[in-house]
Amino acid sequence: MHTRKRSKSSGVAIIGGAVSQFGQFESFNSRDLVYEAFTETIKSVDKGIDLAEIDELFIGNFTNDSFEGQAHLGHLIADWLGLTPIPASRIEGACASGGLAFRQAVNSIKAGTSEIAVVIGVEKMANTELSLVQDYLSKAADVSIEVDQGSFTFPAFYAVMASAYMEKYKMTRKHLMKVAIKNHDNASVNPKAQINLSIRQIMEKKKSRLNQTGNNKVNWDDEFQFLSDLNQNPLVSSPLHLFDCAPITDGAACLIITKEEIASRFTDSYVNILATEQASAGPLYSWGNDITSIPSSRDAAIKAFNSANITPSDIDLAEVHDCFTPAEIMAIEDIGFFPKGQGGHATLAGETEKTGDLPVNISGGLKAKGHPVGATGVAQIVELWSQLSNKAGTRQLSKERLNLGLAHNVGGTGGTCVISILESN
Amino acid sequence: MHTRKRSKSSGVAIIGGAVSQFGQFESFNSRDLVYEAFTETIKSVDKGIDLAEIDELFIGNFTNDSFEGQAHLGHLIADWLGLTPIPASRIEGACASGGLAFRQAVNSIKAGTSEIAVVIGVEKMANTELSLVQDYLSKAADVSIEVDQGSFTFPAFYAVMASAYMEKYKMTRKHLMKVAIKNHDNASVNPKAQINLSIRQIMEKKKSRLNQTGNNKVNWDDEFQFLSDLNQNPLVSSPLHLFDCAPITDGAACLIITKEEIASRFTDSYVNILATEQASAGPLYSWGNDITSIPSSRDAAIKAFNSANITPSDIDLAEVHDCFTPAEIMAIEDIGFFPKGQGGHATLAGETEKTGDLPVNISGGLKAKGHPVGATGVAQIVELWSQLSNKAGTRQLSKERLNLGLAHNVGGTGGTCVISILESN
Repeated sequence: MHTRKRSKSSGVAIIGGAVSQFGQFESFNSRDLVYEAFTETIKSVDKGIDLAEIDELFIGNFTNDSFEGQAHLGHLIADWLGLTPIPASRIEGACASGGLAFRQAVNSIKAGTSEIAVVIGVEKMANTELSLVQDYLSKAADVSIEVDQGSFTFPAFYAVMASAYMEKYKMTRKHLMKVAIKNHDNASVNPKAQINLSIRQIMEKKKSRLNQTGNNKVNWDDEFQFLSDLNQNPLVSSPLHLFDCAPITDGAACLIITKEEIASRFTDSYVNILATEQASAGPLYSWGNDITSIPSSRDAAIKAFNSANITPSDIDLAEVHDCFTPAEIMAIEDIGFFPKGQGGHATLAGETEKTGDLPVNISGGLKAKGHPVGATGVAQIVELWSQLSNKAGTRQLSKERLNLGLAHNVGGTGGTCVISILESN
Repeated sequence: MHTRKRSKSSGVAIIGGAVSQFGQFESFNSRDLVYEAFTETIKSVDKGIDLAEIDELFIGNFTNDSFEGQAHLGHLIADWLGLTPIPASRIEGACASGGLAFRQAVNSIKAGTSEIAVVIGVEKMANTELSLVQDYLSKAADVSIEVDQGSFTFPAFYAVMASAYMEKYKMTRKHLMKVAIKNHDNASVNPKAQINLSIRQIMEKKKSRLNQTGNNKVNWDDEFQFLSDLNQNPLVSSPLHLFDCAPITDGAACLIITKEEIASRFTDSYVNILATEQASAGPLYSWGNDITSIPSSRDAAIKAFNSANITPSDIDLAEVHDCFTPAEIMAIEDIGFFPKGQGGHATLAGETEKTGDLPVNISGGLKAKGHPVGATGVAQIVELWSQLSNKAGTRQLSKERLNLGLAHNVGGTGGTCVISILESN
């Protein structure tokens, strides 16, 4: 049974949240995406909230400077949402920008600077030419060394980490495939997901299409066979194939937080923030011999569990940063859910499925829900909030077993990591 | 006499600070600039500080994504300075990025998240082709409307504001020139300033050079005549001329802050942070009929004076955001130092000179000290700290009269404004 007496709260609570539809939307810009997430968030506050009650706005965004040629998003978004003249700041930490924005917002409430803060994450990526997307995302690495001299792209970074991991711990591609299969299964019941299809659904669609064209060479019995077919799942950067990689996504996510002591003015099912902790690491090239584990994930996890006064085994569900399938396996080990080297086996055994002991990425994860980079850290917490407040609709996990959720948001190859722990009220 | 009993502190204090040399440095990147400012800051802590005591790092930076093609500066700078694995975040609010980073750092201390935080501001601009610099800086405006459709650049924004102001309040170019003359005078005794020459020194140099070449047509009796000579002070965007505009600058600035109750462990001359308040405004096109005053400056000032429990007349010195000369005049009115329409006259009368009642931009201001955009908000506070702690060297104002200082940092045309008020210990 659970740890309500033992756990320690930050004194800050979530009273509402929402994500925009995730996908690729040619005619939407970042303001449109934010507007969609924000208006739905306002509606999600059970007892209502006036815009005039909002004290401050935090925006997590990675590189709108490049994608849309627009910086200084804070005041523009505030103005767009009718929140002028409240303070508005953009926080950037590559793909962890959303987690950082959330953490700064919690600080603002804890400091007494604000009573009610809105946290937004957003990224508009899909209208940009693919080679430029790659350049822009590379700005999360140490460009002068890793990119300009090392010619690394992000799939390549995670490919070398995966290779080292697979060799050290005897993991196979099957373990990686299972991450994709599980997360697509979860996304198939998430209407906001960019790819809300299971791998089986994708496989059956392709099969029926190929059968219609008289091509009956395909003979996939299951998803693993489908994902082993190079025509269906081409190589990106060995050992990573297409279905090991999160897609390019447009999307926004939004949360409203306030002091725990006044949260019941807005809803009876608020969610307490026990901890939101952050750590840094040097660039990948500086890690030395072992690149099978992300130091900032370990450091942030230790801080977060200490701060919340709980242990990894207390957690009931987790959203982790699966930008590539091996990243999920490293994450569930680095956080402390599984011993080092056991994450892949646990995944293959179904322990992180929605019916398993520890559902991981019930939203579909970055892999299938989509990965609008600045939005991701906020969207993870929206998912936890909706599950812990019993508002997750068709993918709601059994309420009785849900008390504690953890979000794990990584920037770059782990230069930045934010881990937040939430508890149902 | 002053208001020490009446004023209210945030509970956070500054224990050290420094700026790098400001200028244009072909062979320095942003990490070099930060390293220079940080190491001097560490040395500035009277009783010493261990790097291991630092809990968190905040970086104010505008658009390194574009200037250096490098985002995710937080962890890179932390690693460069030997601070891994502490949390490190980049905050962006155009030219107010430094002020925002300072404010978030204060929040972190107030929240109890950190005990000791480092705030850094940095921008590396001068290696970039000038037309691209213009494009990058324009990202602070509403690009889709003001830049793409309105063809505005930043000198043009401030030119229309200045034109409206000059018409409404019968101000002349002489008032603007006086801002430049005063700030260059101040910068002439600031060894870190990009242009540490008075206008008179520049004039005399030019005179002697022209006289040597046999050209004796020039006949400037004073700085106003010199600045009226279109050959010496060419038009940029009417009514703004070259000497009305801040230069393109490489530079970094750094501060260390901690809880007031432990500040004396580090120095006996710490400086208390009474307030750091922020406000937003919509883009310039949304302001309606009056563009002679910046709404976010007024809003942030009211909040800051309320929070500190003092009035504008209590302030002994101010660093204000003089990206263009008219901006200083609008600032000293919007903050409440002078009635609307009187800022230019007060400036011309010498009231804001270092010998006047209210020294403004004793550092030389953005105009002459230089304006490395992300560093500016931090550098302003470094200047106040050094004056209030009696460490300003050759430009130290008389210690007896200095108790309260104010920094005013603006992003874009006022989309973001941060005002901080400091008090000597």
